[in-house]
Amino acid sequence: MKVVVMAEKSSFASRGSHADIEEGVVFAPKFDADGLITAVATDAKSGDVLMVAHMNDEALRKTITSGEAWYYSRSRKTLWKKGESSSHVQHVVELRVDCDQDALWLKVEQLGPGACHTGRRSCFYRAVLLGKSGAVTLQFRNGEKTFDSGKVYDQKK
Amino acid sequence: MKVVVMAEKSSFASRGSHADIEEGVVFAPKFDADGLITAVATDAKSGDVLMVAHMNDEALRKTITSGEAWYYSRSRKTLWKKGESSSHVQHVVELRVDCDQDALWLKVEQLGPGACHTGRRSCFYRAVLLGKSGAVTLQFRNGEKTFDSGKVYDQKK
Repeated sequence: MKVVVMAEKSSFASRGSHADIEEGVVFAPKFDADGLITAVATDAKSGDVLMVAHMNDEALRKTITSGEAWYYSRSRKTLWKKGESSSHVQHVVELRVDCDQDALWLKVEQLGPGACHTGRRSCFYRAVLLGKSGAVTLQFRNGEKTFDSGKVYDQKK
Repeated sequence: MKVVVMAEKSSFASRGSHADIEEGVVFAPKFDADGLITAVATDAKSGDVLMVAHMNDEALRKTITSGEAWYYSRSRKTLWKKGESSSHVQHVVELRVDCDQDALWLKVEQLGPGACHTGRRSCFYRAVLLGKSGAVTLQFRNGEKTFDSGKVYDQKK
């Protein structure tokens, strides 16, 4: 069992009615029990999904005010500006929210050779083979490395 | 406070080493404490994000074997085939997994006029205006309704 303490109140608007949330123009994002909201970053030119990450209230605020993507690292438990180690900053071309305002879509201009800490353009470099039962195999697609992740991330630590 | 009971063991491969997960070809998806994994569905033609949803082990199995998208509804606490009420089925053109295998990207052929229960092509029909502090406003983009959600979802209940 895992005990989760409810997050602090959002600094954004309170949630309002169902109609307000789905059809209104007030941004009232829903953070989960850990205080996080899912954020999907796509390449504004190719449309490819680059990464799926999370934002807390502060990361979302900083993204909106700066126009550059900030996230919250669940593993490191810390606010994190994309590119702070790698200089692979994400300029936010457009930020969208979904119907129930519990997910975000960032169309970004990805600076540098890639978004993934493994040294690739996108984190989604493997396909799951369909039509299978039992053990399921992956196949690399667009899996070539575009930078040396060891050098990029270690040099600036 | 919210008490979360850890999910049952995955029916997929066990997680293996860091290198296995990131550079291997064994599919070993990571489900969260609620037994769910985040799934992003994009339109295979336009690249637009249609929706962000979740799958449990069974939904993911059914998606892989059938090539049509199944999800798990957190609000209704039930397995759910996309299109079972609306007939707006999603054919999975490609299923990808990310570096740490805790997020999925489905490129889909969206049957029917839309994916969103509000009657729109995509759930992401509003943009968050950037460069603002304090209260933040949304702006509709591609927000026109493509079908009558009341008719589509009520007729088949």
